[in-house]
Amino acid sequence: MIYLDNAATTRPDGDALSRAEAFVRTEFYNPSALYGGGLKVAAEVKEARGKLLSFIADPERFELVFTSGGTEADNLAVFSSARRGNAVTTAGEHAAVYRCFTELKNRGIEPRFAPLNRDGSVDPEKVSALVDGQTSLVSVVHVNNETGAVNDIAEIARRVKEKNPRCRFHSDGVQAFGKIPVRLGKEIDLYSVSAHKIGGLKGTGALIKGKGLALSPQIFGGGQEGTLRSGTENVLGILDFRFAAEKKFSSLAADGERLLRLRDALWAQLDSSLFSRISPAEGSPYILTVTARGMRGEVLQRMIEARGTIVGTGSACSSKKPHSRVLEACGYDGAALDGVLRLSFSPETDGEEIAAAAEALNGSAREYRERL
Amino acid sequence: MIYLDNAATTRPDGDALSRAEAFVRTEFYNPSALYGGGLKVAAEVKEARGKLLSFIADPERFELVFTSGGTEADNLAVFSSARRGNAVTTAGEHAAVYRCFTELKNRGIEPRFAPLNRDGSVDPEKVSALVDGQTSLVSVVHVNNETGAVNDIAEIARRVKEKNPRCRFHSDGVQAFGKIPVRLGKEIDLYSVSAHKIGGLKGTGALIKGKGLALSPQIFGGGQEGTLRSGTENVLGILDFRFAAEKKFSSLAADGERLLRLRDALWAQLDSSLFSRISPAEGSPYILTVTARGMRGEVLQRMIEARGTIVGTGSACSSKKPHSRVLEACGYDGAALDGVLRLSFSPETDGEEIAAAAEALNGSAREYRERL
Repeated sequence: MIYLDNAATTRPDGDALSRAEAFVRTEFYNPSALYGGGLKVAAEVKEARGKLLSFIADPERFELVFTSGGTEADNLAVFSSARRGNAVTTAGEHAAVYRCFTELKNRGIEPRFAPLNRDGSVDPEKVSALVDGQTSLVSVVHVNNETGAVNDIAEIARRVKEKNPRCRFHSDGVQAFGKIPVRLGKEIDLYSVSAHKIGGLKGTGALIKGKGLALSPQIFGGGQEGTLRSGTENVLGILDFRFAAEKKFSSLAADGERLLRLRDALWAQLDSSLFSRISPAEGSPYILTVTARGMRGEVLQRMIEARGTIVGTGSACSSKKPHSRVLEACGYDGAALDGVLRLSFSPETDGEEIAAAAEALNGSAREYRERL
Repeated sequence: MIYLDNAATTRPDGDALSRAEAFVRTEFYNPSALYGGGLKVAAEVKEARGKLLSFIADPERFELVFTSGGTEADNLAVFSSARRGNAVTTAGEHAAVYRCFTELKNRGIEPRFAPLNRDGSVDPEKVSALVDGQTSLVSVVHVNNETGAVNDIAEIARRVKEKNPRCRFHSDGVQAFGKIPVRLGKEIDLYSVSAHKIGGLKGTGALIKGKGLALSPQIFGGGQEGTLRSGTENVLGILDFRFAAEKKFSSLAADGERLLRLRDALWAQLDSSLFSRISPAEGSPYILTVTARGMRGEVLQRMIEARGTIVGTGSACSSKKPHSRVLEACGYDGAALDGVLRLSFSPETDGEEIAAAAEALNGSAREYRERL
């Protein structure tokens, strides 16, 4: 099978998993324990923390809190920061941020949503227009998980802080970390990342935060992660995250260039009488979202699967809903929303797979059009 | 090294880890995805859910929500249930429950703490005495993680419900699940369990809840776990939990009997002029807590480690505090609290290890007394 749903999750990196697993089979101790074994595990977790942080931020100015995944990182960021007044986000957020914002209303904080451009990106002006003196948090996704559109979070954050310097800025970086070049500047307060989108394991993520920024714990207990996130550390997931990330960051630029060519080759090979492109040209090299107008994406998905290629129909986390909330906010009508397919890549994707996938997509859409 | 800190964490079961790992290496798909691979992973998660639940509860009446561990399960139970009036717990709770209760005060709910008996257990009468018409939750640990004392949670819950039938009853079962016989009756609403205390991996746990009992999500997002706990499922941790638990439950009674003998053999071999026993005779077979009065537990711990045996000094999660809050609540004075050692076992512990550990403890305590 050709797997083109890497934005939903990736195959675990085999070497990273073997290394992490070998460690925990012998050094299985509780990192809070004060004897030799515990200290050794704690040191390994600390090293993973430093390594992961160093890939995208200055460890002098930022720190990293391990969580159970990107979703928990987003929740910790939002509920810790949107504590009064209003909070601003976009219509293009992953559910992990979006649902926190709809919950804010129940907690007496007014959520405000900036509208989207057609490609899923947000206009920095439209975000800052919603910010006022009562805004406690702005959260803008870095790479839109449904279209691959890249938001200039540094520019957006600068505008936000110009208007309200006390307002915090968070970005969900789950589809950016390990895929596109990122360096967190001082205008970014909080940044969420996830392991299983880059060859790590499901169940591990992290919130990167400015040093000195106070967070309110959302999970209370033994005081792990500097009291910000209690619970015995997921040592296997954390070490595996580090090893998988090391590999990804070692070839990030080359992978990006290669996948950009493959993404565009795939688009060029798709029958333009059947498919329209949703993803922007300047979007992430890892995502190509298209729509087969008037067809049903989930039916098409099964036909394509029968031809040996796995594709997504939108965000896996919200697959149960009829239409994508995000793409609806991009301004697409029902016929376009029905036919959405998300093709997402990994550094393992190659040109042969791309050609075969194009054939499977074209063939399936033709068959669909003829038969249904 | 002889490892007697199994209440802090256990060595991962090698077979369970191999099986779970082999699965996720090939079936790595997102369980929310609607194509074949995703459905297969979702089915495997569902089977693990049913299996784990069936070990201690009737699947017709209970359901199971996977979490990132026992701590998150406790948080979900407490913050979902203690929503008004007051909430009752004991002075003997693990920090994962205790810290939630101290946080309740900030949320306008009055926390009430029942005092402990000398062995760490709680008098059912003293719990129910704190319950009134305004009590929304009672939470009582099943097996005290610091002493091994077993609370009769069914009896306590019955008394609580007699006084206030609308009050919810939760128990932290982290040190009970897979170790002592448990069958959840209808008087129990919520029960927390953890994987890494029984040969599973750190980073996975579950909250078992009565069907139809409404919980408020603490983590919002893609709507996994029936919207109660969003975030892509930790598939490796979940499958591994199942496999590890299957092994533990298959020999639970025999392991318990054998460890009871070993626990008592260890106590019999300890020099009673050096060590006093804290754990009750009728407590968990998996925990023997003693104190070397007037000595420093953490110094003794290192001396014992140098002689080849790893022991705990109390709850690993709160090792940074000078004294155990729980044992203080049992009524021990400073000299006794200083010298606490927790010896905790696993089904792999054998008689030879017990004899060697006794020698290491006696030898270390004698040396301590002579030299310091």
